[in-house]
Parts: sequence; C-alpha cells; structure tokens
Amino acid sequence: MSDDEKRFAPISTRQVPRFAGVSTFLRLPQHADARDVDVLIVGAPFDGGTTFRPGARFGPRGVRIASALTRGFVLEQNVNLFESLRCADGGDVLCIPMSIERTLENIRARVADIAAHGAVPALVGGDHTITLGALRALAAQHGPLGLVHFDAHSDTFGPAWGIDVHHGTVFRHAAEEQLLRRNDVLQIGLRGPLTAADDLEAAKRYGFKIVSADQVADDLLGVARTISALTGSGPVYVSFDMDALDPVYAPGTGTPVPGGLTSREALRLVRALQGVEIVGCDVVEISPDHDSTGNTALLAASLLTEILATLAATRAGSFAAR
Amino acid sequence: MSDDEKRFAPISTRQVPRFAGVSTFLRLPQHADARDVDVLIVGAPFDGGTTFRPGARFGPRGVRIASALTRGFVLEQNVNLFESLRCADGGDVLCIPMSIERTLENIRARVADIAAHGAVPALVGGDHTITLGALRALAAQHGPLGLVHFDAHSDTFGPAWGIDVHHGTVFRHAAEEQLLRRNDVLQIGLRGPLTAADDLEAAKRYGFKIVSADQVADDLLGVARTISALTGSGPVYVSFDMDALDPVYAPGTGTPVPGGLTSREALRLVRALQGVEIVGCDVVEISPDHDSTGNTALLAASLLTEILATLAATRAGSFAAR
Amino acid sequence: MSDDEKRFAPISTRQVPRFAGVSTFLRLPQHADARDVDVLIVGAPFDGGTTFRPGARFGPRGVRIASALTRGFVLEQNVNLFESLRCADGGDVLCIPMSIERTLENIRARVADIAAHGAVPALVGGDHTITLGALRALAAQHGPLGLVHFDAHSDTFGPAWGIDVHHGTVFRHAAEEQLLRRNDVLQIGLRGPLTAADDLEAAKRYGFKIVSADQVADDLLGVARTISALTGSGPVYVSFDMDALDPVYAPGTGTPVPGGLTSREALRLVRALQGVEIVGCDVVEISPDHDSTGNTALLAASLLTEILATLAATRAGSFAAR
Amino acid sequence: MSDDEKRFAPISTRQVPRFAGVSTFLRLPQHADARDVDVLIVGAPFDGGTTFRPGARFGPRGVRIASALTRGFVLEQNVNLFESLRCADGGDVLCIPMSIERTLENIRARVADIAAHGAVPALVGGDHTITLGALRALAAQHGPLGLVHFDAHSDTFGPAWGIDVHHGTVFRHAAEEQLLRRNDVLQIGLRGPLTAADDLEAAKRYGFKIVSADQVADDLLGVARTISALTGSGPVYVSFDMDALDPVYAPGTGTPVPGGLTSREALRLVRALQGVEIVGCDVVEISPDHDSTGNTALLAASLLTEILATLAATRAGSFAAR
Amino acid sequence: MSDDEKRFAPISTRQVPRFAGVSTFLRLPQHADARDVDVLIVGAPFDGGTTFRPGARFGPRGVRIASALTRGFVLEQNVNLFESLRCADGGDVLCIPMSIERTLENIRARVADIAAHGAVPALVGGDHTITLGALRALAAQHGPLGLVHFDAHSDTFGPAWGIDVHHGTVFRHAAEEQLLRRNDVLQIGLRGPLTAADDLEAAKRYGFKIVSADQVADDLLGVARTISALTGSGPVYVSFDMDALDPVYAPGTGTPVPGGLTSREALRLVRALQGVEIVGCDVVEISPDHDSTGNTALLAASLLTEILATLAATRAGSFAAR
Amino acid sequence: MSDDEKRFAPISTRQVPRFAGVSTFLRLPQHADARDVDVLIVGAPFDGGTTFRPGARFGPRGVRIASALTRGFVLEQNVNLFESLRCADGGDVLCIPMSIERTLENIRARVADIAAHGAVPALVGGDHTITLGALRALAAQHGPLGLVHFDAHSDTFGPAWGIDVHHGTVFRHAAEEQLLRRNDVLQIGLRGPLTAADDLEAAKRYGFKIVSADQVADDLLGVARTISALTGSGPVYVSFDMDALDPVYAPGTGTPVPGGLTSREALRLVRALQGVEIVGCDVVEISPDHDSTGNTALLAASLLTEILATLAATRAGSFAAR
Repeated sequence: MSDDEKRFAPISTRQVPRFAGVSTFLRLPQHADARDVDVLIVGAPFDGGTTFRPGARFGPRGVRIASALTRGFVLEQNVNLFESLRCADGGDVLCIPMSIERTLENIRARVADIAAHGAVPALVGGDHTITLGALRALAAQHGPLGLVHFDAHSDTFGPAWGIDVHHGTVFRHAAEEQLLRRNDVLQIGLRGPLTAADDLEAAKRYGFKIVSADQVADDLLGVARTISALTGSGPVYVSFDMDALDPVYAPGTGTPVPGGLTSREALRLVRALQGVEIVGCDVVEISPDHDSTGNTALLAASLLTEILATLAATRAGSFAAR
Repeated sequence: MSDDEKRFAPISTRQVPRFAGVSTFLRLPQHADARDVDVLIVGAPFDGGTTFRPGARFGPRGVRIASALTRGFVLEQNVNLFESLRCADGGDVLCIPMSIERTLENIRARVADIAAHGAVPALVGGDHTITLGALRALAAQHGPLGLVHFDAHSDTFGPAWGIDVHHGTVFRHAAEEQLLRRNDVLQIGLRGPLTAADDLEAAKRYGFKIVSADQVADDLLGVARTISALTGSGPVYVSFDMDALDPVYAPGTGTPVPGGLTSREALRLVRALQGVEIVGCDVVEISPDHDSTGNTALLAASLLTEILATLAATRAGSFAAR
Repeated sequence: MSDDEKRFAPISTRQVPRFAGVSTFLRLPQHADARDVDVLIVGAPFDGGTTFRPGARFGPRGVRIASALTRGFVLEQNVNLFESLRCADGGDVLCIPMSIERTLENIRARVADIAAHGAVPALVGGDHTITLGALRALAAQHGPLGLVHFDAHSDTFGPAWGIDVHHGTVFRHAAEEQLLRRNDVLQIGLRGPLTAADDLEAAKRYGFKIVSADQVADDLLGVARTISALTGSGPVYVSFDMDALDPVYAPGTGTPVPGGLTSREALRLVRALQGVEIVGCDVVEISPDHDSTGNTALLAASLLTEILATLAATRAGSFAAR
Repeated sequence: MSDDEKRFAPISTRQVPRFAGVSTFLRLPQHADARDVDVLIVGAPFDGGTTFRPGARFGPRGVRIASALTRGFVLEQNVNLFESLRCADGGDVLCIPMSIERTLENIRARVADIAAHGAVPALVGGDHTITLGALRALAAQHGPLGLVHFDAHSDTFGPAWGIDVHHGTVFRHAAEEQLLRRNDVLQIGLRGPLTAADDLEAAKRYGFKIVSADQVADDLLGVARTISALTGSGPVYVSFDMDALDPVYAPGTGTPVPGGLTSREALRLVRALQGVEIVGCDVVEISPDHDSTGNTALLAASLLTEILATLAATRAGSFAAR
Repeated sequence: MSDDEKRFAPISTRQVPRFAGVSTFLRLPQHADARDVDVLIVGAPFDGGTTFRPGARFGPRGVRIASALTRGFVLEQNVNLFESLRCADGGDVLCIPMSIERTLENIRARVADIAAHGAVPALVGGDHTITLGALRALAAQHGPLGLVHFDAHSDTFGPAWGIDVHHGTVFRHAAEEQLLRRNDVLQIGLRGPLTAADDLEAAKRYGFKIVSADQVADDLLGVARTISALTGSGPVYVSFDMDALDPVYAPGTGTPVPGGLTSREALRLVRALQGVEIVGCDVVEISPDHDSTGNTALLAASLLTEILATLAATRAGSFAAR
Repeated sequence: MSDDEKRFAPISTRQVPRFAGVSTFLRLPQHADARDVDVLIVGAPFDGGTTFRPGARFGPRGVRIASALTRGFVLEQNVNLFESLRCADGGDVLCIPMSIERTLENIRARVADIAAHGAVPALVGGDHTITLGALRALAAQHGPLGLVHFDAHSDTFGPAWGIDVHHGTVFRHAAEEQLLRRNDVLQIGLRGPLTAADDLEAAKRYGFKIVSADQVADDLLGVARTISALTGSGPVYVSFDMDALDPVYAPGTGTPVPGGLTSREALRLVRALQGVEIVGCDVVEISPDHDSTGNTALLAASLLTEILATLAATRAGSFAAR
C-alpha cells in the first residue's frame, strides 16, 4: 500500500486510541472529495419520513461513535477491507427535517457526484426514505439496479395521511420510477403482522422476491445462495434496514417487529454478497436514543464493514476461493 | 364485515396515528360489556404475589402502550384476527396490591362474567397469581381445563414465608382445586437452576407434561406438534409467563432465568395453538420498569395477538389447510 | 356538584387505582364534545417543526401516563380544580409529521371548535409549532391575545434551511399575523447563549416584555407581580415550553439550555396567573424518550393542573383573597 | 478510640477500596448483636404497603451500594460520626411482601430488641409502612415520642380499597395508638396537590405542626429553628421519606411530587437535629429501580449519615458551640 | 450433609429473601479462610488493564447483586452444586487501578493461598488481565495448565502504547511464561474483525486450538465434545470472558463484538466441562454500568454456577452417566 | 471579522445542522496548529487516576456531542465569544490509561506547545489528574499561577494504596512543585463528608482559600467578588471539576457528593472571571456513561463556553462596563 492510499484507512490506534478523538465512520479520515477514494461513507441524518418513532436523524452520529470498535480485517471473510479500498468519511448531506423533497434532492445530488467520480457511495441513515434519493442517482448512472433489501417491511405501502413519499413507500416509488430491475430485487426478513392481507400485493406484482424472516430461520444457506445468485446480474444496491433484525438485536430503530433476524444470520447473509456488483449501499433506521446499550449502532457499523468487505473481496477476486 | 363488527377492531391509523391517542390494548375500542364481543381483553394490574422483584402491576399499561405497533393480519398464520373476532379493551379488574384473596375473587368474578356471555377472556397481567382467578372462573363454566403453560418455572412450588398463594404456587392450587385436566397440561420452557432436586416432583405427580427449554431448542417442531395434539381434547387455557423467554428477549419480568426461549421459538409454538379450543388466555409477568427498551411489552403484545389469531383461525376452520 | 358535573372529574381511585386503567389526561373521562365541558384537554402529537431533537410527538402519551399522580385540590392555591370546572380528555388532533401546514390547520380547526362552544382549550404538545394553530383560532374568536410565554428561547427567530414556520419562529408569525396584543406579551425564562447578539431584536421590536431566567432568580415575587398585572388586560393565552426549566428539571425536551427555572419557581409563577383571563393554554416540548425518570412529563402534568387551578380560582373569584 | 470500638467503624479503604467488597450500610461491619454498638442500622426491605409504584423493597440494597461514597467526618457539622458512636450493619428484618401485619410485627420485635440493649435503631426502608413497627417498639420502650417527619404527604389518610394500614396511613395509626406526643410532631415538606381539601384535617386535628415545602423555601432558618426547638422535649423519632425532596433530587421513590425540597435544604434541616434526643430514625421510600443515576440512594445514605452525625454531636455535647 | 458443611451453602430464603440482605456471591456465607471450603469465590475488582471502556472493577459487585436469583440444583446437569461442594464468598483481592503489577501479585498470592489449602479458586473479574495472576499461582502449584478460554478475542496480542501487560495480552504472557500446556488450550468464540490478518498468528504458533463463534454455531455438539476431550488431560483452568457472548446477551462488557455466542450455547458448552479436572476458573469483563438490564451479570452468575456444578458432578463421578 | 478569522468559529448550522455532522468541541473546526488560533480546545481522555468510578476517558467525546447545542453569544455576559477569539478543536492528547506518568508528560508537552505559540489551552478531561500536566506546562511558561478551582474535594489528599499521583492529590503536587501562587488559590464548592477532620489541613497550610458549598449558597455575590478580585493578580488557571455541582446537575461524574452547587450558581460564578487573566482552563471529571440524560456533558460544554466568553470579554475590555 502506498503512503497515499494509507491515508484513506482508519486512524491508527497508536495516534488516537479507540476511546479518544473526533468520531468518524470506521475511524476513517474526513474527506469530502470522491475523486480520491474508492468508497465514500456519507451520513443522511433524516427522520422526516418516519411514521411512528423519530430519532434516526441521529443515526450517523451513533454509527460514528460505535465505529470506535470496528476493525478492518474480517476473519470470516478473510479480507482486509482497507487494503484494497480507499475509504473516507464524507460528512453528512444537508437533510431538512421538514422537507422530504429537498432532502431527497440533496441526497440524490451528493450520491450522483460520488458515483460520477467512480466511487461507491455508502449511506448511513436516517430513515428509509433516504434510499430513494440514492436509487435515483445510481439508476441515472448505472441504469436500473438490482436490490438486496433487508427489512421487516416491504416498504411498498400506500400514502399515509395523504403523504405519498415516506419511509414505508420507498420501494414502490423506486419500482414505479423504473429504478429497479424488478426481478433482481430481494426483500429479506419480512414478517407479520400487517394491516391487511393485501399489504404485500404491490411487492409481488412488481416481481420482487420476498424472503420472510421464517424462511431465513429455516434455510439460512439457501437464502445466502439466493443472494449470491445476483453475481453477474448487473449493478446492485444493498439496503439494510435495522428492523430486519429482531428488536432484541436492534432496539434502536423506529418500527421494531418481534421475530426477526439474529445478528449471526444478518452477518452471514451479508457475507453472501461477495461477488455481487455493489454500486451503492446503506444502513438505515438507526435511532440511538432508543438504543440503551448501543448495540444497534454497533451492529450497524459492523454490517457496513462487512458489506464493504465483500466489495473488497469482489474487487480482489478473492471470493472465488469460496 | 358489517358496520357493527367494524367497531370492535383497532382504531384506524388515519384517525389516530400509531404515535397518538389514548393507548388501549391492540388499539381496540374501550368497551366493558362482554355481550357485544368475541374476545374481551382485560388488564389485571397486580404484583402482590411476587416473591422477588415487583412491577408487574404496570404490565397492562405497558402492553397498552406497546400495542401501538400491533396489526391484525398475521402473515405467518395467514389470518386477519379482526375479521372474524370482535375484540375490545375491557379495562382493568380492580386489583388490590395488599390482598391476594380479594384480587383473585375480583378476577374470578370478571372472567366468569365474560365467559358467561360467551366471550373469550384474555388477561394481561400482572404477576402469575392472577391466573388462578381466571382458572377458577373458567373451570366453573367449562369443567376442568387443559393448559398450555409457557414459563421458566413450574409454579407448583410450596408456600413462601407461610404464604400459600403466591405467583409460584398457582398451578399447584389449580391442580388441587381440580381446575385442570392433569393429563392435558403442558409446561413449556422450564429450566434450572432450582432450589432442590425435588422441586418438580409435584408437577410430575400431577401428571403435567414438562417440556424443558432445552427440549424446545432441540426439537421445536416436535414441541409444536405436542401443542397441536391438544386439538379436540376439550377446552384449553393458555398462560404465557414472559420469563419463559430468555432474559434477553424479556428483561422486563420479575424472575428472569438465562437459557430460555427465543422470540422466534415462542412465536412458532404459539402458532401451533391453531385448532385448540382456547377458552381463555393470559400473558403475565410483564414489568415495564425493568424493560429499558420496551421489547418485553412489545413481544407480549405480539404473543397475545398471535394467540388470538390462532383462535380466529380455529373458528374460521382455516387451520385445516395446514 | 351535580351528578352530571361529577362525570367530568377524574376517575375515582377506588374504581381505577392510580397504577391501573387506560391513561387519560389528569385521569379525566374521554369526551370529544366541547359543549359539555368547561375545559377540554387535547393532545397535539407533533414534532415536525423541531430543529434539533425530535420526540415531542410522544408528549401527549407521556403526560397521560404521568397524570396518574395528579390530584385536584391544589394546596398552595387552596382550590379544588374539578369542583368548579368540568374537564375532559378530548383525544388528540390529527397531526401529520410531514406537514406543518396541515397540522396547524387541524389544530386551528379543533381549537376554534372548542372555543366556539365556550370551553377553554388546553393543549398538550408536541413541539412549540402547535401554538401557532391555537393562537390563530383564539385570536379569530377573541381578537388579539395577551400572552404569558415560558421558554428558554424567544421563538421569534428566522427561517431554518428555508423553512419559515418551525418551532423557533412561532411568536414572530403570531406577532406579524396580528394575533397578539404586543404589549401584553411576557416571555419568561429566556437565557443565552444565542447565535448572535441581535437574536432578540425582533422580540424587542414587537414590544414583548422579556424576563430572563436570571431575573426570575433575582426577583421571583417581582416577576409574579408582572404576571398578575395582566389581570384585566383582556384574554390571555398561556404557553409553557418545558425548556424554560433547567434541563435538570426537564431533561425530556428538544433543546435543553442550562441555567433555567427550578420547578419551584415555575410552579410559583404559574400560580400568579390567578385573576388573569385565560382563554387557552398549552404545555409543549415534552419528549418522553429523553426523560429517563419521567420527571419532565410529571412536572408538565403538574403545571397544567396548576394553570387550570388558577382558572378555577379566577372563575370562583377566590383569588380576590390574595 | 479503643481497638474494640474501632471495629464498629467503616472498613478502611486501604483494605477494601470504595469500588470493592461486599456492600454494607456506610461500609460498616456486619454485626447483628445490638449489645455491642451504639447504633444498629437495619434494613426493612418491604413495599407491600405501597399504593402506587413498588420497588422500595430494594431500598436497603440500594443504600448499601450507594454507601460506598459516604465518609465519617461531616464538615458542616464538624463531627466525626464514628469517633463517638459504634455503628454496625445489622442485616435486614424478615419482611413478607404479602403480609403487612407480620412484617410490622417482625420490625417491631427487632427494633424493640435493639432499643432494649440501649442502642439506637436506624432503619432503611422500605416503604413508609415500616415506620409504624418502629414507633410501636420505641413508644413501648420510651413512652410517646416526638416526631420529625419529612415527607410530601401527611400519611394520615384513610384506608385504600378497604386496607387500613398502608404507606399513607402510618401516622394516623401512630397518633391513634398513642405512640406520639402530638404537639411534638413536625411534618415538613408537605405540598399539593391533594385529593380533597380536607386531606390534612386529621393531621391538624391531632395537633401536628405542618411545615409546607413552600415554607421551607421561604424561611429555611426558621424551619431549622423549629426543629431545634424539640431539644429537651423528650425522645424523638426522625423519619425521612425521600419524596419530601423534589423528584429531581429523588426520582427513585414511589410517589414523587414536584415542588419539593432541594438536597441542600434537606441536609441543612437534618443538621438542625443537633441537640434533639433521637431514639430512632429511618430513611424510607427509596426505589432503586426508578433511580437511573443512583442519586436517590446516595442522598438517602448521606441524610442517614448526617442524622447519625447529629446524634454523635448531641452525645458529645459539641452542638453547644453553635 | 452435616451441619458444618451446610454452613457453606447459600443462605436460606426463609432467613433472607432474595430481595433482601447483604449481597454475596451465590448468596454464600462470607468466609476468608480457604481451609474450610472446597471452593472459594473471590472478587478481583480491576479494570486497569482495559484498552477501551472501563467499568469491570464493578464486576464483583454486579455479580454479587445478580446472584440473588441463582440456585443450587442445576436441572440440566442433574447436580446439586452445594451438596458436594462447600463454597464461600472470600471477599475481594486488593486491586489497585493504577498498578497492573501489584494487582497481579496480590491476585497471585491470594490464589496461591487458596490452592495451597486444597480449595478451588473461582475469580469474578475484573478485566481479563486478572487471569494472569491466577494462572501464575496455579501453574506454580500444579504445573502447566490446560485452558478452556471463552472469548471474542485471542488475547495474545501485542503491547498497546508501550504497555506490555494488559487485558489483550494475557495468554501471550501465559504461554511465554510456560504456564500452559499449549496443546490443551481451547479458545472458543473468537471472531472478527481484527486489526490485521496476522492477529491470530501467535495463538496458532503456540498451538492453541481456536474455535470460532461460527464453528460454535455450526457444530455445537462437536465443540462440546472437544471440551469434554480434555477429561484426563490434567489440571485445567476455565476462563470465561463475557464478550464471548453476542453483545445482546452481554452488553455489559468492555469490548463487545457482534456475532457471538447465545446464552444457550454458552450454557451448553460450559456443561461439557463435566469430567474435566478444573483447578481454577473465572468469569471476567463484566461491566455493570453498561448493563442496563442486568442480564450480563445474571448470566455471569449463572455461568459460574454451572461451571462449579460441573466440578461437583466431576467429583461425585455423576457425569459418568452421560 | 475577516474571512480567515471566520474559519475559527463554529460551523454554520446551514451547512451542518445541529443534529448532523462530525461532532467537535463547540462545533469548531478541527485544527491542530496553535499558531493560528487564540484558543485551542484539546481533549485529555484519561481516567487512569480515578479512585472510585472510571469513565472520564469518554469525557471529551461526551462534550463534543453535547456541544451541538452551544452557541457563541452569551446573553448574560453580552459577549460573542467567537467575534474576538479564534478557536479550534485541537484533537485529543495521547493518554495511556495504564500510565499516569506518560500521560501527564504528553499533556504537559501539548499544553506547553500551545502556550508557546501564544494560544490559551482549554482542556476537556478526563479525570482531575490531567490538570497537573497543564499546570506544569503553564507555570514553566508564566511562572506560578493563580488558581480558581471548582470542586467538591480539595484534591490535596495523600497517596492511595501507595500511588502518590492520582485525581485526589493534584493540587498537593502543584503546591509542592511551586506551580501555584498559593495565596491566589480559590477552592470553591468543597463540602463534607471527609474521611477525617484533618483532610483539609494541607490545603489550609498552603494558604489556599476554601469556599465551601454552603458559603456559595449563603453569599453568591460575595463569592463572585472574591473571584473577580483575582483581576490584576497575574496569570490564572481555571479548573472546573464537575463534582463541584450537586449530583443532580452532574450525575455523570466519578465521585458525586450531595449538597453541591446548582447550575445557576456555577454559571454566575464562572462569569465573575471577567477581567481575570486566564492563561489556561479545564473542565474535568465528566463521565458520560453515568450521565443518563446528557446533562452533565451539556453543562460542561456550557461552562467551557462561559469561561471562554469571559476571556473574550477580558480581552475586549468589555467587562469594564459591569
């Protein structure tokens, strides 16, 4: 690794111990310019699209703090994330709690800029609304995208109180705006209860492949294979809503639903992304004020690390050894 | 669904968003008269029978609050609970912290009244002592009952400090008062440590079938079949003590014991009640002041929803399709 | 007191102990129709106007829960609130987190309806934005209003990120919409730090009387007299932002500022409202998720009780005895 | 100080640092025999008399833990408590949550035994019910007692749900059982709201002197003098209910009431006990599960230390120097 | 059991209910002299070797409190721990936060004294540094030891900021000081991420057998058999670092790592120690201030109970029945 | 203000809303070079000198987060801090938890470097030990210093367990190393209890002026005048230990002592520093993990702001107008 590349790796713990210093994503240097890096991690501190419990605007702050405990070599993937990828903390997009529209536009513009420079944007939310901004930018750049979407909810629901874009309608809009390759969409972790029997009709109509939380419990390896099967399908976006996890693993989220994934299942499924062409990703719905132990933010930081590690492995071709 | 029936379903989120309004069980209308409904959910805010850590008197309040996140269509059961069952929040029974005797009598009278009108009483505790009042009323109505009892403890123990009726002796009294069909009693989730080797002798002598937490871990489907096998055996009562769950899933309880059920296991076992003739049920030992994330109350609300959904499925005959 | 009036007083603790039952404001009956009462307490669960930390949408729920500990006879005022005032919990106004405009209109309409029937509306917020809806309704009914405004901030600031109506601009809009008798406006509890020296220029220009937190500390009786001096000035609105208090007394709020009022000072100042013609009031900026001990909501419920008690005293003429 | 006496002082921090070792009251040795000491501190872990929020059964445990930070030389009193008083942790009385009667009898017997050996019993509650047991024992030994009673409530109220002895009726029973010198009873810190205007009639009828929280605020020195005036009046019992304090200072209590004493006021009033003939004392209504920062238990431990220090000063005659 | 032996079993709940009394390890009598017991449980309240988040100095206090819920008969092992083993709470070793060296020497001396009298020392930490003191004492007594080490980390890392002995280097020092039978060392629960790919080189070089958290997930029975295979290998030390568990099960620890063991897995693996010749054990890295529900300390107390129960079973030869 | 100076003021909330972005002290730019600024705020994340409860190593992180709510214009001082002072976040000094000596040397070197360039160092601790490093550097630069020291403790105590430099001995060492102008030392907020009557002898012998917490309560203005009287006495260091405050205002600290200062008193006393020649300052003993509401860190950030504002006022000569 050259000196220059080294700069875009975590700050050494000799210089700044884990308990010290200004908190950045994965202890990375702060750097706004996407031209110099392979991955730019950007916060989207927005919860103006939340229908129940707000707080996700503090998600980026929470993940920055929890990042103190992350490291670069992922034992289970046998990959050192920062050896092949130059990464940085790109700061936060200006999100306006009272305007979904302007916020999405700001996110879109920032993500477009990152992608235009050939870097992979990794967003830290924020509620799930923010993903729509990212998808708009990336589909403009890459064409319709495959999607690996971890969530308790399908987020293809109808308007709430006359509001059409909110955190529960994101993938309906994405589908209808033709941002997705509909047959390459996986929704993993869905579970009841729902308001009505037809709540999943839209998702099914679009051709999304729904993998319920129970299916994950029953056949983890099978689900992992389904994810891996996206290899070669084209550019893919990965969106991880923390409520995919059981509320015990992720209490710090806006709409927890019992019966979800365990941390172990989530980590293993994410590792199955090795080989998939990830052009963008996010972890969303992290609400630190509801996270009394900090576990939600720590797990979000870990999942982000693992997703990026699969990207490193993919680029290094190392996943071939599986 | 007629207009009349509609009244006994959750308040629409258009009228009262999930974050707003007076909190009731499952967002149901408040209605005291059992004649108008199929299920009446009643709180029993009592912790005067607790031998360790009190707080379960706030269980009904906690479950009402957590109910904000519940919905009626249970994906995994393919049932819309409120389509076939008219449900209401019947308020709380007058529980007197200093008098187990008078509290049990008040519970007995209220449950008897509900059952007499043909409705199914669903209690939200409260410590486990309250179940004795319900069993007395329902056995008087239906004759001896089958029992599906989820718990870390057998609750067939001896007196404490000379007090014979407390939350650890309920099923000994129920057995000795001939309220139970002893061979149709399942105790699920039990585990050590115990004070002495003979702590389970009474339960065994009564003929209760004990299913340890380890047995659940080793053979979930087998245990589910054991539950389903109660179909056709006659009227059954379901009592879910939250400490059946591992303390990680239900920290908000009075006597947590490590090594218990996961949320997923509990949900799956409860779903196995489809077909069983449930004449009453409860969820007990919810102590919100020890529940820093609210997960215990949320899971209790979910388990209650799922139990009632099995009742809906049973009545609709839909479970036959399994 | 006639039987009919009795209905609009708190539910007896014999029927429903303080730890039990559905939680309503001050343990009052739920009743939506303003024609039957003197005071209608209405929740406004909105935090879409919050510039820092959201959560006030759960304020009404938090105050309903904390209300368990309130009672009607205020020793220090020598008044039994419920003897002269018929009060009820009127439920929550439909607030839409994503639309300040529609939320304010809903609040305006509800308050207008209450006032049109001769009842006094008492709002429980919600962030401070909600007050603008109430002022619009009441000024339409009564003409420009006097105002007793407790707050750390003047809330006459400029737009944020291009948003002109938010929780920090309410009284600028009220002044400019001619909703206030500017010389009868007291702003009590203000303190630094501010973004710039001219932050209070607007308030001063309008003629608002600013009473800093330090002035309260230095001359509590003098400030109380200033409040009482509004007696006879015409209809007055009372708005209590919980951040007027030191964060130690009200941690559960959106924008805490050290150096604020003590609970004792707040209670004493509120009692000075005896004699003032209150036509509406609110307590706002209660965020239960930031209120680890529940003190903020309890104090908010107490302040609301005391404000209503001054109304009772005023109507009974009992304050003349001071 | 002889070697023997030394044994009844706190364990040296050289032997056991403050963060280490088995937690005892004020870091004192455990010793059950009252004959060897001047003061025996005894826990009464009981909350079976609580009408709202239980948890005080963990009060003794909480105060033992908080005691880690206490020390013996009270600067403001210029007294080293342990130089003149041999003190020990006498363990807990057997309290039975389900039986007020048997618990009070156990407390009475233990306190009688302590007093019979000439030691001063200091109780750590537990809810306020426990005080009745202590008063019965001490009045039997010393005749009717004076009382300095810190509390938000008079605790001379009527039965609740037919239960005549509970934590709100203690001093009515004490008065009617002739355990008190009624004119030497001070009730300090009382405040509204009350259920009805006549709630304090009983206390007034008995001749108790009521000092409201507002009177403390207005004339701290005057109230201190009123306490000191009990010097020479005969044996006095001191009972400190933590809800005398504002909930901010003592959130960890069963029935918090805003507008109470500050820590500083409480400490100063307690110091005014120098000279008074204390024959027993308690701190009660400490509920650690509602005390997120531990402040309530720490302040309770400090108040107990200060009360005992006044006893030391009284016995040493050192208070004459005031 | 003779009267004398009985003394070294938990205090009866009739004498001291679980919610009452001075808290000791497993409710055992306090007794410093190792000659009278089979097992002496000793606290090592030290966190001076912690590289991230301190707080483990309160581990012994936390485990003493959580011990209230432990009991002696382990259902799953069919063993009553206290029937065959005389156990006591031996107090805490003097640990000096600012001196690793003196602390380790104090621990070594205390453990050596216990072992010299034929008792088994069981330590409650404290950060992992303390284990080095115990290993030094026991290897001096027994020769090189086998080791069953549960942990997320190998703790064979290099110096931090020039400090060579800290909680991450313990087993490197143990190996290099020849305290271990290197081929009888199991490290169970390890997982990524690591700082670099070669972080585990030292452990591998020593010949330690590494069992990753994923291997536990994939083959629990196989790992249990690997543990049992140490039967007959000679004296073994068991060290349980709570971060071996997933942070959801043990949030109260210094360096949590997502993806760890469940409580059920940990309990089952520990039970596999039946037959192994345990000469000492510890549970470490319990930080109660990060343990909002108390689950970490409760699980630590349970694991300690189970380890000692295997010792009881081993000595009784009862494990042969497996 | 020139463009260049502007850079060293808080980041605009238009660019980065308060809830967003990387957290720095007072939202200042990160800048390590003291030559460019008037004040450099530096974290000293160290708690290796703590004798009771650690956690202060997270103080800098906590204050950075709480800084989100600070602003520059201090109403009560009528000063805009950032108009006259160029300020920056200088990052953290490398603190080694296991080495007091090396940590103090690192602090000394960093502070010496800042002072050498004419900037004022402002430290955020960390436990009180860190102050010794700063005093060594500044006395070397300026000669013996005056000291305004807010604290519950004198910190002139003796060694603990043979450790001579720890957080309770700092000012003994400072006095004996001749770093202080002993007659210009104020210790404000001290209070009991102490271990022994002679605990304050050293402080008195050095000639320190002790102002007890009670004296602050009795004569706030007098104490303020005593502080102001240091004007013209020479260079002064200000050290604010958060435990000077009552634990209610600062629960997040290592050794809380009831009966301390209120936030209002602290703010007013700090403002009295206008005119004093401050050459360095710190706020110490902030332990966020014990600060459930974040108030301690918020108040620490506010006190730091106010201290720096007095510096701004002093330099601008504006304080003359008092």
